[in-house]
Amino acid sequence: MEIDTQLIPSPPNSNALLDRTVVVIDVLRATSVIVQALSQGALEIHPVATVDEAFQMAKAFGESSMLLGGERESKRIPGFDLGNSPKEYIAEKVRGKKLILATTNGTKAFHLVSMGKEILVGSFLNIGAVAERCLELDRDLFIFLSGDEGNFSLEDTICGGMLIELITRKRKKSISLTDASQCAQVLYQRFKDNLLGSFHLCRHGKELINRGFDDDPVYCAQIDITNVVPIFRDGVIRVSPPPLPPRGHRR
Amino acid sequence: MEIDTQLIPSPPNSNALLDRTVVVIDVLRATSVIVQALSQGALEIHPVATVDEAFQMAKAFGESSMLLGGERESKRIPGFDLGNSPKEYIAEKVRGKKLILATTNGTKAFHLVSMGKEILVGSFLNIGAVAERCLELDRDLFIFLSGDEGNFSLEDTICGGMLIELITRKRKKSISLTDASQCAQVLYQRFKDNLLGSFHLCRHGKELINRGFDDDPVYCAQIDITNVVPIFRDGVIRVSPPPLPPRGHRR
Repeated sequence: MEIDTQLIPSPPNSNALLDRTVVVIDVLRATSVIVQALSQGALEIHPVATVDEAFQMAKAFGESSMLLGGERESKRIPGFDLGNSPKEYIAEKVRGKKLILATTNGTKAFHLVSMGKEILVGSFLNIGAVAERCLELDRDLFIFLSGDEGNFSLEDTICGGMLIELITRKRKKSISLTDASQCAQVLYQRFKDNLLGSFHLCRHGKELINRGFDDDPVYCAQIDITNVVPIFRDGVIRVSPPPLPPRGHRR
Repeated sequence: MEIDTQLIPSPPNSNALLDRTVVVIDVLRATSVIVQALSQGALEIHPVATVDEAFQMAKAFGESSMLLGGERESKRIPGFDLGNSPKEYIAEKVRGKKLILATTNGTKAFHLVSMGKEILVGSFLNIGAVAERCLELDRDLFIFLSGDEGNFSLEDTICGGMLIELITRKRKKSISLTDASQCAQVLYQRFKDNLLGSFHLCRHGKELINRGFDDDPVYCAQIDITNVVPIFRDGVIRVSPPPLPPRGHRR
């Protein structure tokens, strides 16, 4: 198994993704929100790149069960039902609902990696379950970090590094890490005892705190509060059922 | 002072460089070769992107004092005088000569950052002198890592991290580090006691060793063997004279 990591959110080589499991990470906050919403019973999430696209999609669906969520400059978008704080996405609001989500970095990322064999959604909230799924799928892995307005993001890379650490610790067969994956692993090892502290060092974490979203870094630094593994397929994110066991083991 | 680091060798935003000191780093091996050649008395180095360009330039100059150096797939290019191993660039061969250098990653980098206010050449061989010069210039800093065929390179990032560490330790006024610069600094701190070991982990270091260039990583891991600070200006790299002292201190 090879694990590669894209440290900057530029369009990857699509052909390189065809046979790979892809994990998209945007810790602050899109993938944390997606994991949280689905763990609270949301039916499905449509990630879109622009606010216009979100409104058009809502109009086209015309369903009252549809909620609009997301942010621009960290704040809730006028006319939207929800912002981009994971704690807003509670069962009382999202159970049984379909969501359209428009955020600055994370929701665009899914469309950049849509050629991947299987596209999973990762965050600290579900990192152990994502690692397990990657091990079950047993393919080469491509970790796509959504970044910070096109730039490198410390918090996403630390999360990618935790995924690498969990997989390398559990897999018995050898794993090859690219230079970028080794970088992510070193960053995780440096900050693993103080994830929240790392959110106070990174640009986007500081911005969120300055804008009054102090609770969000705290929420997003929680590890393994759910086993939900969301999967992006045909433009929609849903909870992925676990893969079938090998034929001999089925009942 | 802000220190930003470009982790992937894609074209940077030129306007962002106008008022910055830029340091280009390609540890294995272009910037190590440049530093070595100038410390051994080479007059000037013309970094070019392609082999054709190198031959055309040599023809145009038509001087017997001109040497061609560089590599493709790590090996010396047919018709060239020198390869890309720093230990080839000794005084007996290069003193008083002008060099044309064509390498896979490093020599292209200079042209990508040509809008920088002052463009310095960094490597472990001269890292202390480069840090001093950056402190004297006292401008925002942009560290450009030449990478590995378009990808992230561990060894360049560790070297960038050492530059950041030296500057932040010596500068009395506050320094702001972008997420990418923090990443580089953490990587340096992780590998500072075993630079050569890090060259055995990174893709390009392993490739060099596999191809029989075992001595080159050892050579390039030496710290501060020269005080030469090469500067790239108008397409040519020369040894930069130290800046004049403030007017009151001139004799």
